[in-house]
This record gives sequence, C-alpha cells and structure tokens, in this order.
Amino acid sequence: MEWNFMTFREIEESIKNDPLVIIPVGSVEEHGNHLPVGSDSFQAIYVAEKISERLNALVLPPIYYGYTELDDFKGTISIGFDALYMIMKDILNSLIRQGVKKILIISGHASGIHMAALKRASNEVVRDNMVKIMLLSDYDIAYELRGNLIPQDDSHAGIIETSRMMAIMPEKVKGDMRFRKGEKGNFLVVSNYSTVYPEGTFSDPRGSSRELGEKINNYVIEKLIQIIRDNFCIS
Amino acid sequence: MEWNFMTFREIEESIKNDPLVIIPVGSVEEHGNHLPVGSDSFQAIYVAEKISERLNALVLPPIYYGYTELDDFKGTISIGFDALYMIMKDILNSLIRQGVKKILIISGHASGIHMAALKRASNEVVRDNMVKIMLLSDYDIAYELRGNLIPQDDSHAGIIETSRMMAIMPEKVKGDMRFRKGEKGNFLVVSNYSTVYPEGTFSDPRGSSRELGEKINNYVIEKLIQIIRDNFCIS
Amino acid sequence: MEWNFMTFREIEESIKNDPLVIIPVGSVEEHGNHLPVGSDSFQAIYVAEKISERLNALVLPPIYYGYTELDDFKGTISIGFDALYMIMKDILNSLIRQGVKKILIISGHASGIHMAALKRASNEVVRDNMVKIMLLSDYDIAYELRGNLIPQDDSHAGIIETSRMMAIMPEKVKGDMRFRKGEKGNFLVVSNYSTVYPEGTFSDPRGSSRELGEKINNYVIEKLIQIIRDNFCIS
Amino acid sequence: MEWNFMTFREIEESIKNDPLVIIPVGSVEEHGNHLPVGSDSFQAIYVAEKISERLNALVLPPIYYGYTELDDFKGTISIGFDALYMIMKDILNSLIRQGVKKILIISGHASGIHMAALKRASNEVVRDNMVKIMLLSDYDIAYELRGNLIPQDDSHAGIIETSRMMAIMPEKVKGDMRFRKGEKGNFLVVSNYSTVYPEGTFSDPRGSSRELGEKINNYVIEKLIQIIRDNFCIS
Amino acid sequence: MEWNFMTFREIEESIKNDPLVIIPVGSVEEHGNHLPVGSDSFQAIYVAEKISERLNALVLPPIYYGYTELDDFKGTISIGFDALYMIMKDILNSLIRQGVKKILIISGHASGIHMAALKRASNEVVRDNMVKIMLLSDYDIAYELRGNLIPQDDSHAGIIETSRMMAIMPEKVKGDMRFRKGEKGNFLVVSNYSTVYPEGTFSDPRGSSRELGEKINNYVIEKLIQIIRDNFCIS
Amino acid sequence: MEWNFMTFREIEESIKNDPLVIIPVGSVEEHGNHLPVGSDSFQAIYVAEKISERLNALVLPPIYYGYTELDDFKGTISIGFDALYMIMKDILNSLIRQGVKKILIISGHASGIHMAALKRASNEVVRDNMVKIMLLSDYDIAYELRGNLIPQDDSHAGIIETSRMMAIMPEKVKGDMRFRKGEKGNFLVVSNYSTVYPEGTFSDPRGSSRELGEKINNYVIEKLIQIIRDNFCIS
Repeated sequence: MEWNFMTFREIEESIKNDPLVIIPVGSVEEHGNHLPVGSDSFQAIYVAEKISERLNALVLPPIYYGYTELDDFKGTISIGFDALYMIMKDILNSLIRQGVKKILIISGHASGIHMAALKRASNEVVRDNMVKIMLLSDYDIAYELRGNLIPQDDSHAGIIETSRMMAIMPEKVKGDMRFRKGEKGNFLVVSNYSTVYPEGTFSDPRGSSRELGEKINNYVIEKLIQIIRDNFCIS
Repeated sequence: MEWNFMTFREIEESIKNDPLVIIPVGSVEEHGNHLPVGSDSFQAIYVAEKISERLNALVLPPIYYGYTELDDFKGTISIGFDALYMIMKDILNSLIRQGVKKILIISGHASGIHMAALKRASNEVVRDNMVKIMLLSDYDIAYELRGNLIPQDDSHAGIIETSRMMAIMPEKVKGDMRFRKGEKGNFLVVSNYSTVYPEGTFSDPRGSSRELGEKINNYVIEKLIQIIRDNFCIS
Repeated sequence: MEWNFMTFREIEESIKNDPLVIIPVGSVEEHGNHLPVGSDSFQAIYVAEKISERLNALVLPPIYYGYTELDDFKGTISIGFDALYMIMKDILNSLIRQGVKKILIISGHASGIHMAALKRASNEVVRDNMVKIMLLSDYDIAYELRGNLIPQDDSHAGIIETSRMMAIMPEKVKGDMRFRKGEKGNFLVVSNYSTVYPEGTFSDPRGSSRELGEKINNYVIEKLIQIIRDNFCIS
Repeated sequence: MEWNFMTFREIEESIKNDPLVIIPVGSVEEHGNHLPVGSDSFQAIYVAEKISERLNALVLPPIYYGYTELDDFKGTISIGFDALYMIMKDILNSLIRQGVKKILIISGHASGIHMAALKRASNEVVRDNMVKIMLLSDYDIAYELRGNLIPQDDSHAGIIETSRMMAIMPEKVKGDMRFRKGEKGNFLVVSNYSTVYPEGTFSDPRGSSRELGEKINNYVIEKLIQIIRDNFCIS
Repeated sequence: MEWNFMTFREIEESIKNDPLVIIPVGSVEEHGNHLPVGSDSFQAIYVAEKISERLNALVLPPIYYGYTELDDFKGTISIGFDALYMIMKDILNSLIRQGVKKILIISGHASGIHMAALKRASNEVVRDNMVKIMLLSDYDIAYELRGNLIPQDDSHAGIIETSRMMAIMPEKVKGDMRFRKGEKGNFLVVSNYSTVYPEGTFSDPRGSSRELGEKINNYVIEKLIQIIRDNFCIS
Repeated sequence: MEWNFMTFREIEESIKNDPLVIIPVGSVEEHGNHLPVGSDSFQAIYVAEKISERLNALVLPPIYYGYTELDDFKGTISIGFDALYMIMKDILNSLIRQGVKKILIISGHASGIHMAALKRASNEVVRDNMVKIMLLSDYDIAYELRGNLIPQDDSHAGIIETSRMMAIMPEKVKGDMRFRKGEKGNFLVVSNYSTVYPEGTFSDPRGSSRELGEKINNYVIEKLIQIIRDNFCIS
C-alpha cells in the first residue's frame, strides 16, 4: 500500500474507502559512530509500514530531510523551518483536495523546531478543512519506556534508538559505540553540538540489543494503533 | 555509497576525497493507467545509483516531492515553488558547509517551474561559493532519442518513460496502456489537465518494451557520465 | 533598571559593564474564569524584575503578544509564528549591534510553536555572533514542582499558575474557579479548544493559595538565578 | 478597561456592547539626553488611557517596539517592516474574529515606514472585513500646534515632546537638554543619524514645561475624541 | 542618455565617469475624467529626462507600476508593497554591483505605503554599501507652491497635476474636468475611494493651464537640480 | 489603445467589450556590442502594438525588468524571481478584479527562471478565477525559423534578434557585431557568463538584415494572431 507504487486510478479507488494516509518524516542527522545518519527516517518508515499492514493505510513517500540543530557535524543535512513547514503544508493541501480525511504524520525526529514546523502546517490546515490530523514522533511513545531497564536519561543515539535500529536494520548498525558525556548549559542556545558531544552520542548506547529493540518497536506500534483507532474511529 | 546508510564519521572520511555528491529529485505525479505515481523518482534514483557505482559518488536520499501542474489528477501531490526551492537551497548549503565541492542534481521530473526552483537554488549557491553544480533532468538527455524508432512527440508517460520503467521496475508497470489524445490551446495556461488528458497519458505508450528501456537508460547513463567527467574533471 | 525608562546615554554607559539583558515574553490568552488574559506576561515580567534586582540586569519592555492555539476563545489574541520569530530576531540583532553579549529570554507562555519561534530566532543569531542566549519558559522550572502537593497533571490555569498569580497580582484573581475536565484525542491536532475545555481551565485550580504561589515563585527565581550564574559566569 | 487585566468571559461580555478597542504602538528609540527611550510608547499609552476613560474603550497591551531609522544610537531597538506589519495584521484579525468592529491604532512614533507597516495591515484587513479602523500618530494632531508659541520646526525630542513627557511622567525627564543642530541632505537616505544629530535632539527642547505639555495633551485628546465620535458614530 | 538604448559597453564606459543614475517610478492610477491613468509615470519620466539633459545623468527604464489605494476604480492597477520593495531593491543592488555610486529615485506617485516601499529598499541598500541615494516624489517639491494662486488643498488630479500634464503631454488631457467634493473620515482607513470621490478628482482641476504647468515644472526641476548638486557634490 | 494613455472611464467602457489585454515583459540585459540592453523589451512592445492594432487589444505599460543570469555584464539589471512573480501576480489580480477575462503575457526575454516566474503567477491566478491567460515569449515562435537560412544554433544577440531589432529600431543597432564563441559546460550552473561569452553574443550576428527582421516579425505576428484567435475564440 505504498502510494508511490500505485497508479493514479488505484489511488483514486482507494481514497473512496476513506483510508488513513501516513506521512513518514525523518532527518539526515549524525547518530554517533554506530548508527547511520538516516536512522530517524528508517524508524519512522518502519513504524509507518507496520501500521499500514495492520490498518490498511496508505503510506506516502517519506520526507527524508528535517530540521536539526546538530548540523555542525559532518553528515548532518538540515533544512530550515520554512522549507519543512511549506513542504508539509503543500502535501497536506494536496491530500485534502483529493478527499483524504484521515492523516497521520509520524516523525522519527523529535526536536522542538522540527515538530513545530509540522505542527504549524497541521494547525493551519485543520482550521480550514474537514480533516483529522494526528502528529507525533514515535519517540513521544518510545520514551515512555525510560525508567526501568532503560536509563531515565536515555537520549539521542542511546539505548532505545540503537536497539530499535538493531531490530529494524541490523546490518547497518556498527559496533563502535563510543560515548562521551557532554554538558551543555541549561537552557543555553548553542550551535556547536559537535564540541559538546564530540562522539555524537547524547547517552550511552552500550547495553543495546535487538531483542530490546523489538520490544520497544512493538510497544510503539501497539500503542500507536490503539490511539489511531480511538482518534479516527477505526475498528 | 548511500549517504543515509553511512555514519557521520564515514561521511567525514569520504568527503576528504572530494567526491561527487548526487541529489535525486522526483515527483508524485499521475503517469497514466500503467505507471506508478512515483515513476519520476524511480528513474532519477536509478540513474543516480548507476552513476554512483561507476564514479564512486555519494547519493543523498531523494526528494520525492516536486512541483507539478497535473495536480487535478488524484494521486498527484505537488509542492510549491517556494518549498522546492528552499529545501534544495538548504541542502546545498549544508553540503557546502561540510566541504562538498561537486554536486549533481538529477531530476526525473522536467517541467519548467520545477526545474526553475532547482535552478534558482543552484544559481544563488554557485554565486556565493566555490562549488560546481550540474543540474539536469535525465529527460534532457533521453528526449534526444526521439525521432527514429521513437515518435517525435513522445512525451509524459509515453514510450520512452514506459520503456525505461519496464527496465527499472518491471513488476510495477501495469498492462493497461490506454491513451487518449488531448489538445491544449497553444501557450494557454490551464489548470485542468485531467480534462484535457483524461487518461493521464500525453503520448501513446503502446510499443514500449523493456529492451528499449534498457537501451535508453544506457544511453542516458553513458552520456551523463561523459558530461560529468568533462565538467568535474573526473578521470 | 528598565531599559524603557533610561536615556540612550544611560544605556550606552550601562552596556559597557557587560550586563545581562532580559526580554520578557508573554501572551494574550484565556486563563479560565478567574485569571486575566495577560497572566503569562505578568508572570514573566515579575520574574524578570526579580532577577534584574538581584543581578543588576537590564529589562527590555515586554513582548505582550505570543502564539497560542487557544484563539477560538474570546479574549485570546494570537500572533503568527512569523511575526513572533521576526520581532525576536530583530530585537536580538539590535541588541547585538550595540554590544550586548548576555541575553535571557523568559517566556511566561510555553507552548511548542511559540517557543520554537523564539528558539529559531535565537539559533540563527547565536550562529552568526559572539553572544550567549538563554531561552526558557518559567514553566520549564515551575513544573518541576508537580508531583508532591501539586497534582502531577497540573496545567494551564491550574494550581501553579493560579497560586503564582495570587502572589504577584492578587487583586486581579477572581474567585470563580470553575473547572470542567476536557478530553482531547492523543496527538490529535485540533482548533476548537473552547469546545474541549469550555471553561478554559485545563486542570483544577481549586486549592491554590498565595502562600503556595510565593513558594513557587521563589523556587523559580532561585533556581533560575543559579542557572544564569553558571551559564553566564556571573558571580 | 485594560484588556490584559480582564478574564476571557469579561471580554466576551464587553464585546457584545460593540466597544471601541484601542491598540497603542510605540518605539524604543533614543530621545536625547533628557527623555527615556520609551517616550513614544508612554505618550501613546497615556492618550489611549484617557480616551478609554472617556469613551469606555478597551485598551490592548501596547506594542512597545516599532520601526525606527535612528538605530545607530545605543538604546534604540528597531524591528523590521515585516515584523511590525505582521504583528499588527495578526492582532487585527484576532480582534475581528471575536466580533470587534471599531478599532483605533494610535502610535506615539510617526516615521514613514513605521506608519506604512501599520497602514498596510489596516488596509488589507479593512478590505476583507466589516470593520472600521482609525490609524494615526498622536503627533499628526500635536504638530498642528507648531507655529505660535512653539517653533515651526519643532521636532523629535523637541519642545512638544519634552513638554508632553513632563506632563505624563515628570520623574523620568532629565534636566540635560543639550541640543546640537544637525544638517541632513534634503531627501538623502542616510543610515548614520547619530553622526548628523550627535545629541539625539532634532530641535531645541529648551523652553519646555509641564504646563505646556498638559495643554498639548489636552488638545490632542479633545480633538481625537471628536474625530473618533464622528468616525465611529459614538455619542 | 537612456540606459535602455545603450549597449553594455557604452554603459560600462559611462559608469567610469561616476554618473548620476535616475530611476523614474510611476503608478497606473485613475486621475479623474481628464487625465490618463499613466499621469504619475509621465511626470516622473519628464522630470528625469530634463535632469538628465542638464546633469548628464543616465535614466533607467521606468517602473510603471506602483502601490495605490485607489484600486477600486477601473483602470487602476496596484502592485503590493512587497513587489515594489523587491523590484527596487533588486535594481539598486544591480546598479551598485556595477559601480554606480549616485542614485536618484523620483516617483510621480507620492502615497505613504508606496514611498515607504521605496524607502525601505533604499535604507537597506545604503546601510550595506558605499552609495548615495536620494528619494523623493516630485510632488514633495511641487506642493510647496500651494497657497498663492493655487488653493492650499490642491491635491490628486487637481490644478497642479492637471497643469503639469497640460505642459508635458497636452494631447492626452481631456476637457472633462468634472469634480465632486468627497469627505473621508479623518484618519479612517477606507477601501472604497471610488465611493468617496466618484469622479476621481480629489480637488477641483478647473483653472489649470499649460502656462501654469510649465512654471511648476520649471520650479520642480530647478529646485531639484540645486538639491542634487548639493547632495552629490556635482558642479 | 495604450492603457496608460486612457482615462479610467475610457478603460471602464472598453472593458465592457471584453477586450484582450496584453502585458509586454522585457529585460535589461546585455545584447552584445551592437544591440541596446533594452532589446528584449523593444521586441515585446513592438509585437504587442502590432497585435493591438489588429485585434483591438489594450496594451498595458511594459514591465521593463526581468530575471536574467547575465548580470555579471555591466549594463544588465536583473530582478529576482520573487519580484517578477509578485509584480505579475498583482497586475493579473488587478485586471481580474476589474472584469478582464482575456490576457496575453508576451515576454521578449525567454530564459527558464524568468518564464517560470510569469508562469507561476499565471497558474495561481487561473486556478482561482474565470480568466484565460496565454503566456509565451515571442522567441518561442521566432526560433521555429531556425534551420533554413538561419543557423540551427542561432541564439542570444544572434541573427534573428539582430535582424528583428534592425526592422524595429534600426537607429539603435550599432555596426560592431563582434562575436566570440563561448563554451559553457553542459548543464553546468555558472555565474560568470561574461567570462564564457566575453562579447556578449552567444551566436554570430553577422548576416543579419532588416529585410530578414521584417520577415521574422511578420511570421511571429501572424502566427501569434492565429493562436490568439483560436485560444480566445476571437474572430
């Protein structure tokens, strides 16, 4: 049920059944010495596909680029707030014009300005149209698992993210899980994250495992499906 | 050599060798009853990968969304000039900041405003930086083959495009190659292409074949590699 | 030490001592039947003044208007992301041109898009200049107190906010603390908050008191002063 | 009748009576060695409050920041045309959505681009809605008094402005009324006003008095009330 | 000395002599039943040419379109603030890049937002470059003549404007000088000027003459040349 | 039938007959050592006038400025995409508001981004209104004549353009037809055209003649009139 593989007639037919349409959003961002820079995208796409299978949803091609503040690292490619906001608004308007009424935006990347760009687009579109939009990062759910086996301060490129990637794309996870603790001033606005966190890991990834990753992914997917069912009244 | 599968350290190392970086751009656009709406993206990605293999180039994740005027067809998703221009400009600036000096933008979609958005971003970036950028649609080259076996007026979703897709992604090409000739007033600005070309084919796709597609793809790739070598002084 | 009450020469002299400059930001937003719509501004201004007294900081005139999604309530006045981002960026650039090097932006309003607008302006300015900027909502600190005496889900116009306002501006707090629990779908983007929370209170304000408010305000101010000292190396 | 001190229900009730709503606009701008940089705001706020008392008008929180060309003086903080235009347009649209039909924008600052930003916002809003908007600087009226006791070329930080501030906020007016005549080329666009007018006074403030200030303020207020009554048909 | 009639080499040579470059700006705006809608342009072009003859200045092709609030009249074509600001800024930057250092912008149209767009462009360019820019409407000078033979309230399409057009382009002035006094509320923002001034004349044009027009034009030109000489130190 | 020479009443009357309205667009761009920089404008204006005579069309004042990449040549003045797009959109909207239903935009300049700016404005306006817009460069037609007497690679400032200018404005064509062949990398984005084509001629102008120019102009005009008649159903 990938939108990009369908013909326009097939999509036309499919929309008549009032399907959920999922837009995966990622980022191109450093993820330590062990994870590929596309990790945020890969996780969002994975979740989107699983939900699609379970709920017969249509999955749009991903937006691979997001807003990230880690762009003084090599390999990170950040697009601006305006670019992200506009591309999302244009996509939403295109969908609405064709009669789509249920939209889920799932972002593998979760930072404030990035999510705000997606939220602004969604707000404006919801205000003017009869459409329901759900917007979240899968990390809004995954981070609920911090606190028991997983350290409370697990973060960017840490155990949750590494484990999830081990479950999704094991061949792309490298063994070099170097970690160096960084200390950014509280509430301080900085532009040199590569100095603060020279290895690109914000929390220690050691202790990650594929099994844990599968558990987390399942948790995210099951919980998300429940919320989707409630919000969109899908049985 | 897919950027998104590499870690930031691997990209850092790779950039030291002054590689060519390729940005594939597509569109989500109706392509008749036989081709998937992602066809433009798939062709650009295919060409990018082939060139990458031959020239050790890095391939960025594709921009799947483009500007298209065919957005009164279901299935078509168009983003605006500003969104496309901005996302490309932001990506180019990110690349340049990390030291990339050779960039190829290859778009599977070739319409005027779409290409102008990419061109504007490229112009502005070239003016202010020491970087070489090549920008083209693979159709700028593929359409050179019109006139002999291929009709002079071959166009959107016609023989060249269908044959190429047969060679790249045969399982996604449907057999229903309906064609209905349309007639738009010369130079007239219209917004109802689905009325003018009700089947979404601008020229007749019948007569397409995988063999022809392979020939066209090879022609595009060989010619493109030659031009790249000349422009970027790559041996 | 209010900027607006000083002459340009007095400010010129003051800047030579490398002072902290504080920019209070608020919102014009419904706050239930008991709190004035300017509550966010009043709290930010109050904190700014207290810090100014303790650290000899200069306080800029407040930005009374912010971005709020509660604008289907009468009395709420929301400005857009662009307006808020631009006004903050212009102010920051003006300050930097005159030689200011330490800036604290404190917002009484804390919602995502609002904070992202302020963050974007700060990010861009920090990237291009030798300046330190701290950006936070006083609620980032105040909400640390949830969980003991204060309910874990205390929120907009609830006990913390009401108590703080009782301590700051008791004559403006009305007795009518009606509360009606609302239920918005998880992660659902909505534009009709006045239907979801018809009384404008997101959590129950009953149990608020001036004494509690003073404690909270003190906690916020002491903690904030400590962080400011650390970040800006002020003794 | 300050909007910011009212609850949303009180505003809701008030709007039912079709009140005049006043938006005071100022600037943060050098005003010589004797007047505070907030002088423009203080005068606009003062006039707004007096009118509010007389006509039962609601007064919005002021916009303290405006566009000023004197920003090479320390202490001056200028926001751009776009920021000012957008914030005003967003406020006007918020008011209109809630049913406000009579709006007075009064700016203590009167320079061309600043007023044009407010005018553009007003124009666009009037064109699309059933609302009456009056826009002026109190100096459009105050300067009518030039020519008799007051020199014809009285200007920025001169006798009218100083006298008015003496009447409004005497404790903030300093005794140092230095004046140095400046000479800018006719119609020449300059960006170095601090060189042309090194003391920040465009005309000589000596001879100012509180009594004169009270007379001027009364003149402005009486005349303004008359015009408001005529324009909005308020008895 | 019209820029548009010269080759690029001729312009290149001419710029070496550090010439004054004049940019005439007009509007397409109703001017009563007797004057053509291009009147503002024609007057600005006329003045530009006369100055060019006297001072060996280069004259750029005119910008025929401006911002006007009279656009509920048929025949009026108004462009927005942003369009006018951008076109002027782009032209100024082009000139500066080629080494032009003395620029005169002369606008036949004089309304507030229109002039503010030109002023904003000029301000921004002057701030960043070594260039002198003079900006005015010829009406800033022409209206100095009000008060003696010419009524104090002479205005749009009145005696000054009609007389000037009679001197510049007599064959385009019609005899039908209908006038109907209009009454717009003081400081009221309106969008229906065609209702307020149904004949498009803001003051009575009767009494206009070619002789008077020649006198006014001479006055404008002589005075302007004097100011130009002073500002640009041209002998 | 020049719009700018008519009064608003005359235009009002004329619009009742549902006329074609023509908007000529040019550029200020180097055209070799023999042609004036305004050549693109002059050709578009000439064609517009001829069509106006034949079809009773109204001709708007030209937009003399366009987007050109040749702006490292002295004499070239380029405006940005946004400026050109906005001015055209504002003009189109003004025309539509007055009831104009048939619009022809004819641009003497034909480069990609320039045409895309005009196209974007046209697209957006057509989508939202009952109006027919034709958009083309006269070179879209003139270049059909390449291949017989005229070299296949005739281009900027070459035989077609020179001949046309000889027919339109012979006194402005200089004899110095220097040509130096340039070689820009295929699809390479460059910003130094004055290095690639030092004489500003992209193809050899020698062999141009007034007679040939008249033939080309006639061909363009006759063909254009036929297309206009077809598109707008004008007899």
